[in-house]
Amino acid sequence: MIKSWVESANKPSCEFPVNNLPYGVFSRTDGLLRCGVAIGDFVFDCSAAEEQGLLEVSKAPILSKSVWNPLMESGSATWSELRERLMDFFVEGSTKQSLVQSLLYPLSEVNLHMPFNVAEFTDFYSGKHHASNVGTMFRGQENALPPNWLHMPIGYNGRASSVFVSGTNVHRPWGQLKSTKHENPAFLPSRRFDFELEMGAIVGKNSNAPVSTEEADAMIFGYVMLNDWSARDIQAWEYQPLGPFQAKAAATTISPWIVTSLALDPFRISAPDRDVELLPYLKETNPSFYNINLEVFLSPAGTEEHLISRTNYNEIYYSAAQQLAHHTSSGCPMRVGDLLGSGTISGSDRNSRGSMLELSWGGKEPLNLGNETRTFLQDGDTVIFRGGAKTSDYKVGFGECIGKVMPALENPIST
Amino acid sequence: MIKSWVESANKPSCEFPVNNLPYGVFSRTDGLLRCGVAIGDFVFDCSAAEEQGLLEVSKAPILSKSVWNPLMESGSATWSELRERLMDFFVEGSTKQSLVQSLLYPLSEVNLHMPFNVAEFTDFYSGKHHASNVGTMFRGQENALPPNWLHMPIGYNGRASSVFVSGTNVHRPWGQLKSTKHENPAFLPSRRFDFELEMGAIVGKNSNAPVSTEEADAMIFGYVMLNDWSARDIQAWEYQPLGPFQAKAAATTISPWIVTSLALDPFRISAPDRDVELLPYLKETNPSFYNINLEVFLSPAGTEEHLISRTNYNEIYYSAAQQLAHHTSSGCPMRVGDLLGSGTISGSDRNSRGSMLELSWGGKEPLNLGNETRTFLQDGDTVIFRGGAKTSDYKVGFGECIGKVMPALENPIST
Repeated sequence: MIKSWVESANKPSCEFPVNNLPYGVFSRTDGLLRCGVAIGDFVFDCSAAEEQGLLEVSKAPILSKSVWNPLMESGSATWSELRERLMDFFVEGSTKQSLVQSLLYPLSEVNLHMPFNVAEFTDFYSGKHHASNVGTMFRGQENALPPNWLHMPIGYNGRASSVFVSGTNVHRPWGQLKSTKHENPAFLPSRRFDFELEMGAIVGKNSNAPVSTEEADAMIFGYVMLNDWSARDIQAWEYQPLGPFQAKAAATTISPWIVTSLALDPFRISAPDRDVELLPYLKETNPSFYNINLEVFLSPAGTEEHLISRTNYNEIYYSAAQQLAHHTSSGCPMRVGDLLGSGTISGSDRNSRGSMLELSWGGKEPLNLGNETRTFLQDGDTVIFRGGAKTSDYKVGFGECIGKVMPALENPIST
Repeated sequence: MIKSWVESANKPSCEFPVNNLPYGVFSRTDGLLRCGVAIGDFVFDCSAAEEQGLLEVSKAPILSKSVWNPLMESGSATWSELRERLMDFFVEGSTKQSLVQSLLYPLSEVNLHMPFNVAEFTDFYSGKHHASNVGTMFRGQENALPPNWLHMPIGYNGRASSVFVSGTNVHRPWGQLKSTKHENPAFLPSRRFDFELEMGAIVGKNSNAPVSTEEADAMIFGYVMLNDWSARDIQAWEYQPLGPFQAKAAATTISPWIVTSLALDPFRISAPDRDVELLPYLKETNPSFYNINLEVFLSPAGTEEHLISRTNYNEIYYSAAQQLAHHTSSGCPMRVGDLLGSGTISGSDRNSRGSMLELSWGGKEPLNLGNETRTFLQDGDTVIFRGGAKTSDYKVGFGECIGKVMPALENPIST
């Protein structure tokens, strides 16, 4: 651990030591949005530091635009420079302490907002256990993985407009539901509303042509935790043959802190064993997977939290770099702020599954939560993701990714 | 027809009479992007008119931002006011003629650019003949339409980053192709590259909750012609179970002119007969379909154009208003600049089909083009859409939606 004069940053339990320095957007009582970096129990006001001339890393201001996209656009040399400047501010013995400490605000006293403008959102399906579990439920164990699955990171385009920051309430969506008992669908609130535990990678550089996995890896600015809320019953009826659409459009929640690729460098690991050899455009040259522990807690209204799943980002079969290389393979342009969901991250055993669909095995095996049971999410349930990487003496965390399920809005269309 | 002092606007063959006034973005030799409106053989420089104080329709400038999004954001009262002001400029006997005529430039001397920033792009599948044709080819006549098709406008999210203006060359995409002869896929340029004839609707108003079809209809600013380029072989291998992804990501081409909903009002028609009753949230209260003739021409390199299809937007089963209402049904927020593709527009007979896949019936029945034949598109082929609505004495057109197929780029990733 790099020690800091900010005492709380040195606690072994702290997610935000000098080694992390994740980027977020916060407001104080005046409501103004500011770019900030988390250090210990505080957020440092980068916007103010830039305005005061303490933190100029580019000719034009890039830290006072209420989002982190301008830093991404300024290029990877600036990503490194800002990180070094911030480390220099907060390291133990820094000569800058007296200059910067007045710009620290307790995290407990600020509100957190969307850390970046999402250009477009793509969601992959690269969790092998998840794809196997879902496939087994719907098609049987023999045909669990689709034929293309081992050859490419399959994915679909989601909606950027419904990506929200942690803490945003999520209304149970309406949609067309079709039961096997009825000939026709009905328009009703989803009855099988679910979370999906994912990581999100943020593209920090534009591309206009296919890129290699190595180039793709260098384009990724950082990572967030991501909850891809899913209405299983809407999806079951709508998804053939064009894939998920309104089932995934109500909301996607991300953690408030972007942990940079630079901060995650010590936690890189190699790819899992391959069942079949990948095509050359998908082969990784450098380790582009990460060892990041992830936990899911479920808290029914008015009760304590229950740990319902514990897994690791290393369960993913295709890295974000591989997903991004595949995304560009057709020539599809990628832009700063594009967000790539990993796909649901499930481990091999029951306690490591990343969705209620899997945890309750399609609703057949309810989970026990103290005095209650759950198959899918009920109104009032709060879902909390926590996660981070750690060494023997420090942690690098993402904060929490929280969302509470609210009742469906009143029937929007009179019948 | 409303007569104009711009003589060329009064010709019966002219697509741009006073009744139309479509919006585009153009540049002259200085390369500066300006908002313009087409009238006769000319484009009128709306940006300059606003700058000169001739065309102030809002407190802040909205016509000098190189795209039409700011007008959309200003609200539908301003949409109407701008149209009335422009009509007043160009109508025969206008007192403004001497003030505005110096801001007219021949269309033949300007370049046209993207008329708006695409927020997100959604592509529907609402052409019944198209869905039936494709379904028949792949699943047989009995199962041609998916079970959900008659109950909702199914669709998928596409990529906004690859929406280009007419005239942009389109490189044949690379992708994973899997033949039945080989056990594994190969990474190759698409061999079944195709166009899709569609119309695109542009959302001009934000929403954050479900809207009715009537509200949705009022949210649509205007329409463009749209070519949803498709790599059939990439799609065949990738699309299960998450739908089209890289097969549709290389490019989508739109016409340079946005024909406003206001200009298309006289061409509204009622919905087609319904095979099953629609759910209340999808029922239309006012006619939201349009009678717009559409033609597709194919021009192999160095040869003349061949008319290969002639159809009508009225072949669509779900209107853009119904698609938009469905899009919001889950609570999905919609934003100014969202683009909704209609789905491929095919008529009932062979000469009215909207894709090579259908025209050549999966490649089995090649089309004759003079001395050549075609199943799918070859390098050097130019695809041209033309279309418009007409009364007995005037036309309202979209200009041309053109794209030329270029060879695949060199293998982007060394093998």
